Amino acid sequence: MAKKINKIAVLTSGGDAPGMNAAIRAVVRSCSYYNLECVGVYRGYQGLIEGDFEDLTARSVRNIINKGGTFLKSSRSEEFKTEEGRAKAHEKLTDAGVDALVVIGGDGTFTGGLYFNREFDFPIVGIPATIDNDINGTDYTLGYDTALNTVVEAIDKIRDTASSHNRLFLIEVMGRDAGDIALNSGIGAGAEEILLPEEDQGIQRMMDSLEKSKKSGKTSSIIVVAEGEKSGKNIFQLAEFISQSHKEYDIRVSVLGHIQRGGSPSCFDRVLASKLGVGAVEALTDGKTNIMVGVHHQKVVHVPLETALKEDREFDQELRRVANITSV
Amino acid sequence: MAKKINKIAVLTSGGDAPGMNAAIRAVVRSCSYYNLECVGVYRGYQGLIEGDFEDLTARSVRNIINKGGTFLKSSRSEEFKTEEGRAKAHEKLTDAGVDALVVIGGDGTFTGGLYFNREFDFPIVGIPATIDNDINGTDYTLGYDTALNTVVEAIDKIRDTASSHNRLFLIEVMGRDAGDIALNSGIGAGAEEILLPEEDQGIQRMMDSLEKSKKSGKTSSIIVVAEGEKSGKNIFQLAEFISQSHKEYDIRVSVLGHIQRGGSPSCFDRVLASKLGVGAVEALTDGKTNIMVGVHHQKVVHVPLETALKEDREFDQELRRVANITSV
Amino acid sequence: MAKKINKIAVLTSGGDAPGMNAAIRAVVRSCSYYNLECVGVYRGYQGLIEGDFEDLTARSVRNIINKGGTFLKSSRSEEFKTEEGRAKAHEKLTDAGVDALVVIGGDGTFTGGLYFNREFDFPIVGIPATIDNDINGTDYTLGYDTALNTVVEAIDKIRDTASSHNRLFLIEVMGRDAGDIALNSGIGAGAEEILLPEEDQGIQRMMDSLEKSKKSGKTSSIIVVAEGEKSGKNIFQLAEFISQSHKEYDIRVSVLGHIQRGGSPSCFDRVLASKLGVGAVEALTDGKTNIMVGVHHQKVVHVPLETALKEDREFDQELRRVANITSV
Amino acid sequence: MAKKINKIAVLTSGGDAPGMNAAIRAVVRSCSYYNLECVGVYRGYQGLIEGDFEDLTARSVRNIINKGGTFLKSSRSEEFKTEEGRAKAHEKLTDAGVDALVVIGGDGTFTGGLYFNREFDFPIVGIPATIDNDINGTDYTLGYDTALNTVVEAIDKIRDTASSHNRLFLIEVMGRDAGDIALNSGIGAGAEEILLPEEDQGIQRMMDSLEKSKKSGKTSSIIVVAEGEKSGKNIFQLAEFISQSHKEYDIRVSVLGHIQRGGSPSCFDRVLASKLGVGAVEALTDGKTNIMVGVHHQKVVHVPLETALKEDREFDQELRRVANITSV
Repeated sequence: MAKKINKIAVLTSGGDAPGMNAAIRAVVRSCSYYNLECVGVYRGYQGLIEGDFEDLTARSVRNIINKGGTFLKSSRSEEFKTEEGRAKAHEKLTDAGVDALVVIGGDGTFTGGLYFNREFDFPIVGIPATIDNDINGTDYTLGYDTALNTVVEAIDKIRDTASSHNRLFLIEVMGRDAGDIALNSGIGAGAEEILLPEEDQGIQRMMDSLEKSKKSGKTSSIIVVAEGEKSGKNIFQLAEFISQSHKEYDIRVSVLGHIQRGGSPSCFDRVLASKLGVGAVEALTDGKTNIMVGVHHQKVVHVPLETALKEDREFDQELRRVANITSV
Repeated sequence: MAKKINKIAVLTSGGDAPGMNAAIRAVVRSCSYYNLECVGVYRGYQGLIEGDFEDLTARSVRNIINKGGTFLKSSRSEEFKTEEGRAKAHEKLTDAGVDALVVIGGDGTFTGGLYFNREFDFPIVGIPATIDNDINGTDYTLGYDTALNTVVEAIDKIRDTASSHNRLFLIEVMGRDAGDIALNSGIGAGAEEILLPEEDQGIQRMMDSLEKSKKSGKTSSIIVVAEGEKSGKNIFQLAEFISQSHKEYDIRVSVLGHIQRGGSPSCFDRVLASKLGVGAVEALTDGKTNIMVGVHHQKVVHVPLETALKEDREFDQELRRVANITSV
Repeated sequence: MAKKINKIAVLTSGGDAPGMNAAIRAVVRSCSYYNLECVGVYRGYQGLIEGDFEDLTARSVRNIINKGGTFLKSSRSEEFKTEEGRAKAHEKLTDAGVDALVVIGGDGTFTGGLYFNREFDFPIVGIPATIDNDINGTDYTLGYDTALNTVVEAIDKIRDTASSHNRLFLIEVMGRDAGDIALNSGIGAGAEEILLPEEDQGIQRMMDSLEKSKKSGKTSSIIVVAEGEKSGKNIFQLAEFISQSHKEYDIRVSVLGHIQRGGSPSCFDRVLASKLGVGAVEALTDGKTNIMVGVHHQKVVHVPLETALKEDREFDQELRRVANITSV
Repeated sequence: MAKKINKIAVLTSGGDAPGMNAAIRAVVRSCSYYNLECVGVYRGYQGLIEGDFEDLTARSVRNIINKGGTFLKSSRSEEFKTEEGRAKAHEKLTDAGVDALVVIGGDGTFTGGLYFNREFDFPIVGIPATIDNDINGTDYTLGYDTALNTVVEAIDKIRDTASSHNRLFLIEVMGRDAGDIALNSGIGAGAEEILLPEEDQGIQRMMDSLEKSKKSGKTSSIIVVAEGEKSGKNIFQLAEFISQSHKEYDIRVSVLGHIQRGGSPSCFDRVLASKLGVGAVEALTDGKTNIMVGVHHQKVVHVPLETALKEDREFDQELRRVANITSV
């Protein structure tokens, strides 16, 4: 039988994402609600190894629901990838009387949690937080909705210039393996074409689109390019490639970069974070472990961490079709 | 057999909502994609009666996806509530060679469409657009996600003052019958209490919350109140009521009002509008009528207009529970 | 000769304004730069009386430049209006070894400072911070520029609805004695008419404007009304008054309220706060007292507190003229 | 004696800037107010050569005051740099009965206007619009205040990540010759160091700052780099250079790029545009020519175009000092 949980530790790890603070807050408040103790771990798994802990009460997390980043800070820990590192971390948790751990992050975070659970049978629940939305088993990850809004607001600004000058802009957005940001922000920003990691025929279709755009009387164009798209060219090379056959275009490149990770979370992400934070604590007090709490059809679901890490997420072909139609 | 659709008219009606322009754009672009003609109707059903039409092409709707409001304008038409009015509208549509109609709006809009369809067997598809999210059969209505962000951003600003002065703020948000905005924005803004139209025990719970807040050391408080909450007091009377038993509070009232309807749509609403606009045209070319295109589990679904208008939407008890826990 | 300053206290008082945190930060960092000690006083003059102090270092104020409100909190202190109160405050300051005081706020704050200085010859410098811009001797007060942006963004949202529905909106903005917010935001938001505290003929001109608007083919209208305008009617009564003679209008009222005080400060306010914070500390170390540091022609100036409190600010007739011309 | 002005043309040229639409609106409305005709010229000087004109009335410019970019579009015209090009433009203006020209843009725009005026004695007034603020004789150019807000909001987002990860970020902002954006946004965003085109000792000071930051316990750092700073290294080379001697830093680069030019103008820019648009029309009807209308101490001033184009703008040493102090 699962040991009764009296004290829960929470950490954020990997790339930061808007909504992490809101999720920490919900974990801490849920502990308070259920009369459990709560410990914040600074700097992710590295802080776990070093015992960089602080007791958190309901009042410790006031006024953070609307802040980007993570007040517990994050890091990537090489040491936690070693057995020795994880053993130290386990010792620190045991010394502090911690019974269970909530880890907030993406696939690297969950992989670390999986190893840790296997080696020490330590109760772990993960909360998916990454702007890329590239976790299996949850409809949305924390930070993704906010990042979409950041991206479309940035492209709206660039479109002011594109329209004023009849220019072609290539805009790079985040997404190494998943095109969710590119596809959704591309539709949302009214992009003429979108290049995705999940598709191969990018360049040829882009050239066809440009031809079509010209014929249909479009005088400015936005092309959204996911970081991980598969043309084999970087975005500056793509621009060069287009300019060779389309001398009529005044082409500009914009790499949106790190602004996509920050900012105050959207209401959607704050509510999602609240649901998942509550869900994580309730899963642990329910004796669950080795799972991620995700959201499916707006309800909290429990997904084995192994499943969450699978790489066979389905690509939304229907949404790609919508993109093609609305960009005519 | 359904008549082949060659020409589609589109209108917006009732209260405006962010995403209406994006939906019009998607309808127009879909018509263009499928080689159908498209006609924009100005000022909703009133413009339908007056034949206030304009031919729209794919280029007519450029650079509107990010604009609030509706460029086709909206209105409430008393005349369309009469048989004579609807007969005139039908004549205008027939004269213009229109085969089908897409109506974008809320329950009043759909009711009008339902009557019109019954009387003239005229193909009609509705797109749900209202910030209140109070339409049955769709997970989300257009404008709702944007309104949530507008509300939490406004409350974030007010919280700056609440925290600086240790004040209690009562904030009224939209929602006559549905508490979706109040509940979600209340969680998202970290409100201490939320009063909803779907619940009765509002006042007592609020007073309990205030007691609890005081004991837990909270020095400022935000209470979110839906327009249609059931205490029988308006928000100024509520403030007065609290001040009688809680002299320690410096209480302020803020009615957010009309800013909640406007603004550039969120990415979520733009993508939703694009899906639904495409879905509406494809439903019509598929021979469907008398339905609303909604979204369920992120897929476009067809819902009979009668169903959409039903008033027995389920209240999200689970989310209410999350609100209670995260506000400890 | 003025005593050498070794330790400076800083407080915020009265209504909060965006940029207060940035000003505190600049005061603290300037102290650090000049090797002075710095003490933060919580809750304004009330905290001064209660000795609610905290030592502040350059690191205490990290990551606050972009936050609205004031982390030192503010209050209105009745006790400080009494001699006894001020005597207690002086004792606390002396006990803590504080040599000088920076007070950030508006006219109430400066009046308190003036009394305090007279009674105890205690060095005081004020920094003007109020969204109303109603301080004499400085071109701008902290928070004013941010409030203008908040107001025009709110009216932009409301205009979406006004345009979509051909409506007339009356929008109340802050400003009891000064029309700066109303006049500038009215021009910035493209209002058709603006009612100001500094003018008498408001109602008649408004009615003339509405006539003119109707003739010139305007289909929607925004009228910006300062809190303190002189018609003798509140904004709801104004709406009623218009509706009697203009039945063609669908009139709505929006009171923007407390959102105007909050929010992340604009770059302008952050830079202004930085200049004034540095200027305040340098004025004190220079032996100045009983002055406000303001900004005139983009340079920091020293203004006697008595002058700052004068009520004969000039009204910008030229800008009123611009408003009249651009609203034709 | 100057010929009476009956018809004024207006164009935007060069890089677009927020507030251009607001300035066009003010020009058009002022013409309407003074019963002059107004003609909009599309695509700047190129449209002038091609006679790409449209009559504009007060109603043509409704609902554009809050839009970024320029609805008249802009361009860079090689042909206008030739005498033949300018002769064609003059012919088109004469054919259309235009008596005077308002040109909205930066130094290239003014240089073109100067040539045109000299050759044809055609009345010309310039309105300074460029985000760089690099025009002599005006305190502010249109678009500059908006760009500052865009930049600090972007850096605020990046700081979320910097703080969460204890990272060093190098952020490139616009400004080839003028450091106004870098200096003001650097102060506003709380940057630890700022590299400017007007200074030489950039790299050494940056390295000193990093040493100092480390000692003072800063765990994350933002360095703002103007495009045109004088180290001889691009921003990626700067990052490489730092990483060689500071292995403890996890360094990232972000080039903000084109988002800085777009977006809805701030209230400040909208009011400035309104003043300058009115001022430009009134200058022309007053018989003035060959001048720029600028703003000095909040009043509209007339500056000879030659003076506006001078390159000896003073660098704000006082503000640089504020930056040094507030970044300790």
